[in-house]
Amino acid sequence: MEKFVYQFAEGSKEMKTLLGGKGANLAEMKNIGLPVPPGFIISTAASNAYNANEKKLPQPVMDEIQIHLSELERETGKQFGSNENPLLVSVRSGAPVSMPGMMDTILNLGLNDQAVRGLAKLTGDKRSSFDSYRRFIQMFGDVVFHIPAYKFEEALSAIKKKKQYTLDTELTAEDLEQLTETYQNLYIEHTGKEFPQDPYTQLKLSINAVFESWMNPRAVVYRRLHDIDPNLGTAINIQAMVFGNTGDKSGTGIAFTRNPSTGEKRVFGEFLMNAQGEDVVAGIRTPLDITSLETVMPSVYQELMTICADLETHYKDMQDIEFTIEKEKLYILQTRNGKRTTQAAVKVATSLVHEGLISKEEAILRIEPKQLDQLLHPAFDKQALESSVVLATGLPASPGAASGQIYFDANSAVSQVELGTKVILVRNETSPEDIEGMAKSEAILTAHGGMTSHAAVVARGMGKCCIAGCAEITISEKDKTLTTISGQALREGDFISLDGTSGHVYVGQIKLTEAEVSEHFHELMDWVSDVKKLTVRVNADTPSDFKTGIHFGAEGIGLCRTEHMFFQDERIRFVRQMIVSENAEERNKALAHLKMMQKEDFIQLFRIAAGRPVTIRLLDPPLHEFLPKEKKELELLAHDMGKSLRDIEKVVHELVETNPMLGHRGARLAVTYPEIYKMQAEAIMESAVSVSSEGISVFPEIMIPLIATAEELMFVKKEIKASVQDIFERERMILPYDIGTMIEIPRACMVADEIAKEAQFFSFGTNDLTQLTFGFSRDDVGKFLPSYMKNGLLKADPFATIDEGVRLLVETAIKKGRKTNPHMKMGVCGEHGGDPASVRIFHEIGLQYVSCSPFRVPIARLAAAQAVLLAPKMLEASAK
Amino acid sequence: MEKFVYQFAEGSKEMKTLLGGKGANLAEMKNIGLPVPPGFIISTAASNAYNANEKKLPQPVMDEIQIHLSELERETGKQFGSNENPLLVSVRSGAPVSMPGMMDTILNLGLNDQAVRGLAKLTGDKRSSFDSYRRFIQMFGDVVFHIPAYKFEEALSAIKKKKQYTLDTELTAEDLEQLTETYQNLYIEHTGKEFPQDPYTQLKLSINAVFESWMNPRAVVYRRLHDIDPNLGTAINIQAMVFGNTGDKSGTGIAFTRNPSTGEKRVFGEFLMNAQGEDVVAGIRTPLDITSLETVMPSVYQELMTICADLETHYKDMQDIEFTIEKEKLYILQTRNGKRTTQAAVKVATSLVHEGLISKEEAILRIEPKQLDQLLHPAFDKQALESSVVLATGLPASPGAASGQIYFDANSAVSQVELGTKVILVRNETSPEDIEGMAKSEAILTAHGGMTSHAAVVARGMGKCCIAGCAEITISEKDKTLTTISGQALREGDFISLDGTSGHVYVGQIKLTEAEVSEHFHELMDWVSDVKKLTVRVNADTPSDFKTGIHFGAEGIGLCRTEHMFFQDERIRFVRQMIVSENAEERNKALAHLKMMQKEDFIQLFRIAAGRPVTIRLLDPPLHEFLPKEKKELELLAHDMGKSLRDIEKVVHELVETNPMLGHRGARLAVTYPEIYKMQAEAIMESAVSVSSEGISVFPEIMIPLIATAEELMFVKKEIKASVQDIFERERMILPYDIGTMIEIPRACMVADEIAKEAQFFSFGTNDLTQLTFGFSRDDVGKFLPSYMKNGLLKADPFATIDEGVRLLVETAIKKGRKTNPHMKMGVCGEHGGDPASVRIFHEIGLQYVSCSPFRVPIARLAAAQAVLLAPKMLEASAK
Repeated sequence: MEKFVYQFAEGSKEMKTLLGGKGANLAEMKNIGLPVPPGFIISTAASNAYNANEKKLPQPVMDEIQIHLSELERETGKQFGSNENPLLVSVRSGAPVSMPGMMDTILNLGLNDQAVRGLAKLTGDKRSSFDSYRRFIQMFGDVVFHIPAYKFEEALSAIKKKKQYTLDTELTAEDLEQLTETYQNLYIEHTGKEFPQDPYTQLKLSINAVFESWMNPRAVVYRRLHDIDPNLGTAINIQAMVFGNTGDKSGTGIAFTRNPSTGEKRVFGEFLMNAQGEDVVAGIRTPLDITSLETVMPSVYQELMTICADLETHYKDMQDIEFTIEKEKLYILQTRNGKRTTQAAVKVATSLVHEGLISKEEAILRIEPKQLDQLLHPAFDKQALESSVVLATGLPASPGAASGQIYFDANSAVSQVELGTKVILVRNETSPEDIEGMAKSEAILTAHGGMTSHAAVVARGMGKCCIAGCAEITISEKDKTLTTISGQALREGDFISLDGTSGHVYVGQIKLTEAEVSEHFHELMDWVSDVKKLTVRVNADTPSDFKTGIHFGAEGIGLCRTEHMFFQDERIRFVRQMIVSENAEERNKALAHLKMMQKEDFIQLFRIAAGRPVTIRLLDPPLHEFLPKEKKELELLAHDMGKSLRDIEKVVHELVETNPMLGHRGARLAVTYPEIYKMQAEAIMESAVSVSSEGISVFPEIMIPLIATAEELMFVKKEIKASVQDIFERERMILPYDIGTMIEIPRACMVADEIAKEAQFFSFGTNDLTQLTFGFSRDDVGKFLPSYMKNGLLKADPFATIDEGVRLLVETAIKKGRKTNPHMKMGVCGEHGGDPASVRIFHEIGLQYVSCSPFRVPIARLAAAQAVLLAPKMLEASAK
Repeated sequence: MEKFVYQFAEGSKEMKTLLGGKGANLAEMKNIGLPVPPGFIISTAASNAYNANEKKLPQPVMDEIQIHLSELERETGKQFGSNENPLLVSVRSGAPVSMPGMMDTILNLGLNDQAVRGLAKLTGDKRSSFDSYRRFIQMFGDVVFHIPAYKFEEALSAIKKKKQYTLDTELTAEDLEQLTETYQNLYIEHTGKEFPQDPYTQLKLSINAVFESWMNPRAVVYRRLHDIDPNLGTAINIQAMVFGNTGDKSGTGIAFTRNPSTGEKRVFGEFLMNAQGEDVVAGIRTPLDITSLETVMPSVYQELMTICADLETHYKDMQDIEFTIEKEKLYILQTRNGKRTTQAAVKVATSLVHEGLISKEEAILRIEPKQLDQLLHPAFDKQALESSVVLATGLPASPGAASGQIYFDANSAVSQVELGTKVILVRNETSPEDIEGMAKSEAILTAHGGMTSHAAVVARGMGKCCIAGCAEITISEKDKTLTTISGQALREGDFISLDGTSGHVYVGQIKLTEAEVSEHFHELMDWVSDVKKLTVRVNADTPSDFKTGIHFGAEGIGLCRTEHMFFQDERIRFVRQMIVSENAEERNKALAHLKMMQKEDFIQLFRIAAGRPVTIRLLDPPLHEFLPKEKKELELLAHDMGKSLRDIEKVVHELVETNPMLGHRGARLAVTYPEIYKMQAEAIMESAVSVSSEGISVFPEIMIPLIATAEELMFVKKEIKASVQDIFERERMILPYDIGTMIEIPRACMVADEIAKEAQFFSFGTNDLTQLTFGFSRDDVGKFLPSYMKNGLLKADPFATIDEGVRLLVETAIKKGRKTNPHMKMGVCGEHGGDPASVRIFHEIGLQYVSCSPFRVPIARLAAAQAVLLAPKMLEASAK
């Protein structure tokens, strides 16, 4: 018979899929002797049985729960449903993959109108008993019947106002008893029923609700954002309650074994006295620093420190621990690997290596490559910052810097971002409903909550700048205003800037500068270089981009788009003259000017490259992209060409295409106007010769875009080789160089064996290849891609992460190309070259290099190293 | 040692690759005892040796020629280079594949100033000797030094004018002697040298020139048009001359063993007395009908008839024979399979089967599928014809009917056709330089030349309407006018109509009607049906198209484009309303109207189908294609929608896409607006139910366009299936139907195994697949495709004949699809479905059906049958 429910003693930290992350860790902690409140785990198998049974809990599961409840009664000496000595339990969801705050929890289950009095009598603490009861009613009402939380908050505020209290702790037992009644009335008002008095009914409804919460919209969105399999299901942990709200010798808190923001090796945390867990996380009361616990309860503090150290050694990673103190007795409610900033992640990982806890390879696997963005993102320009006015200061919850326009709800933020606005989301506090808005905003600012509040935890996870608990401002979400203590008011759409490292909020926009990276980062990246097999190059069109790329470890240029240089300064005039030329003579005149300009660029790039390979793509886009639209510019062009405006307008009109993406561009231009590529090839090789004469070694790779057939490449290459040969003869110098091709057209993939006969390298242009493989125009896809994502028709945006179909075409091309030329140099220069998931695929299918934008170079390098470590062979070997 | 030169006795008709078509047949004829003038063959091996030897004839080849010349001297009793009894030879090119008129021939080689007198003395016929000499000088000058032919013609006309002669035959021996001198002066004028007197020099230069002629531009164009391998090379036939120009008992002619225009079994031909071969072909003198030879020389006529019958039996096909009569002795100079009209081809092939000469399978292979176009092309409407004025009547050289604007040179014709004009090429006579102009024109009209003139032969080969030798008109190519005997003058650009079956030329345009096909055609197509494996369906959007398709043997509809119905009449108003709707309610209102209209169409189609499968493609093109551009229509739409013009303009503007081919269309529309496909699916199935209730069986196949992922298809299909289920329940009826998908996106090919899980059939949309596989927009490709063709970068237009890369993708999809579903129905509905070369490929790679436009259905059927017969397995079997 299938088993659905497990004792802690039956589990271990490896059983996450079955027991959920929380459950597996509770079992593990129990088994290593930590003070965990007794309980049991309803496994994910039950969740799946629930879903398979038309969303009803099958009887065998209930039967097993019954057996374990009896066991729990024996262990605690309390009875579930007893009015004299009631067993109260917590019901917590716990998915196999951590989804913080996404799913539901109910505390104090088992209380009813009778039991609350029995409990008060037993503990002699009426106040905490009613406090527990009112909390239970609220959570149960929220989780099971979705009664809005603010209804309960309003009732709480009302009684505090009436009694002129500031703090919740000022509420007396009688106040809380009265509040319990108010809450029960609220419950009846919303559900049309009495609050259930039978603890088994409470339990069954709660279990159902938690299983349901697996499919709630915010959980669905979270899983989509984090690529979590929706079929995993969730487990549920049932534990005997311990109470942090039983007076001044009780409390609850959260401890990180190291600083999650900086990685510093010192326990970091917060706690609230006389409170239950959700008070800390919800950010409603501002908690105390963990160090003050030492003064309050020294022995508990010492015990906690010891447990922190033990857990870190046991799990070999920084832990995020939830604890409750019930009348000076410490209970550990949960431990998990702590979320951290990238800066902290790098520091923790490298420190753990130095401490001998993990290997360098493990350290490499500890960092999420995408998170490096956070390290590398620019900070505020120091000078600009000095002249900026600090509006307010909050908690530096997640580092980084950002400027943007303020919006006060997630929906507005999302729609503004879609219009191209840079948005800073401003909220009193965030909740899981805000996830999408947070993901799309530049940064997050909250007035309430601490360093471990929802906003702070989520923002760090996203590698996004966040200032939390900024009490110096008042936010009216309704009026869409933000007011400082000095009375300065900002409205929706106003610009502010956030420094997530200092916690400062500034008015207006502030200039940003390049990121500075730590010694730990460099140490980690050195290990990365030792491990990775893929070469990582940079996509750079300018000396500045190239320098940034090299600073981040780029090993050459994988894509220099010559046409990007065409838009600079005066150049565009000559480009336009070239395009509207009606014969080769006119065209050559314009090309002669362009050649001089291109040479200036190439000479700079070759000098910076200092022998590293530089792949230069010859002219790719359709010519009409360069033509002017404004009448004034058309007139200038007419004047330059000595032609009438009408003639020029006619030429411009003739160049318009129905589907420019599929039009007269790339190598096709070279078939009709061979002189363009000839000029570019000459500019490249004359520059190479010139830089080589300076004693600097050069290695140009001339890349032909948009090749569909081997014949095309042969045709274009012949012309280029002839020009290069002329230069070599004239200059009495021979330089090594390669001529290769972009593989960005499906046909090229299918006939790569033929094309490989003509090419010295393949560079996959996965952007265009994705467009053609899907038949998706990147410019038009916005009209339907959101519907595709919403309906789950695509796993990921194929322009961000390489798609399966595109991968199959790339693999076909690799296989066919290597059949002709087994040692051919092959890489990727599309945007996917900087996407970690794609980099891993490129490693697995046997490419030699990737190339990406400068700031993504470290990401690609780390992903490349992880790809080696995660490759099936490595995994097998490490399993032995 | 390699052998380059062959005696006729060493050859046979199977040796065409080595000896050329002409040489192989001369050898064959010699060996079956026909009166062939003695000679030998310089093989294609020599042509290739010439090319490999930097365009010089290698000495071993010359040595072999010398040996065979000596042999020829022995056989004829004449001496090459002798002044007393000179051996004169013809030098004729003869490629392995017939290229009529493309390559060069020199007659009477061996004559010089001395030998011509020796010959005159020997034969006692000074006139014919000098006639031969002046012809030799002209041909040698033309072929070896490219002296323009008109220079010689001018000199000939001058002397005739001076002497007031009408016919060439009126020229006396002295006239011709004088002409010879004039021709020699012309030769000196152009070459700066004396006419070579040494026969060996003449021979060597001639051989070189013929080998060179293999690469002349018109030969290159012809090979490209007819897909002939340029590496074959040409052979050269050297034969002792026989003379048709030695008086009234001599002559030369051409005989077809059957009528090449109708296929009638009766020798058909023309001859000229006292003439050499080129006089007949060139169309300068109008020849006599072959039957009149019976009166002139009955015994020669009888011998010729017997030889015709023998040759046809020997070659098992209609022969095209060249003969010369020298003083009542008949010589056969050449035989080959005769070019014929398609009508004749069908009649000859079926007759040969009935005569027991060939099998049905051989008959099927005898017809070039593309030629069927000629049979199926519409003829003039009889009523319209009655009221039309006959301008002139010429020879009905190639059947068919056409109207168009007249142009007087091939270049103008080509440029006009490229502008979209329907052109009739009007020439005094055509020459190989006109090939491209002929190929692109609707029809050809010549004033000179007979049924076997260049214009007639080539036009029949092309399946193109042609009237030749229309002596009732005068053409001035210089003034670009055509004048009738009555003095009516037409100018460039005027419309005329040609009936190639009657030979009538009409003024203006005449309405055309459907083609009528012969019983022979139906007989042949019956055999085709027995042989072919591919099902052939029709692409039809209207009842009329569908009926035409069925008339031509279509076995169902392979592609009904629902949106083509959208443009009819009032419908477009509702289509536009649907598109500019801003909510589902507005949209559903417009859709309700469209549904009624679509049902009317589908009911008609299902009735005609009578149980044959009907594949209906749901809405495919981008919505903005349906929107109005004219202000008046925009206003009407605004009125219909009760909106402002500005609102409507805004919606229209928003629908514009950068790359509409890659935009929001096909299944993507159904993801964003599911109600559109729902309406169409309902219209289809409600129509099917309705027609089924009439007792007519129906089989609808609902086809989803533009599928890229299995998830997409699953999503769209679910909606459709639900609608269909509702209809079945409401109507209490269940009908068989399939839901399948177009495979027209490269990604769909790569993941066809996944898509096959969701589809009941695959229909390859090779038009769009070609666009995406190449990244070629069909609308824009005109800017560069001509350069690709000119530079030989593409073997064929990939939109006409399926490309290799596209084929590889289709094969991938078939293989993957069948892996999931081994018996899946798969076919093609792109334009390639009617292209014979593509049909053969589709058969070979394992598709079950092709679908094409109605008039191409018989072509596809024939191509499908030939594919079976030409399949490698069949060829192997027949080789045993």
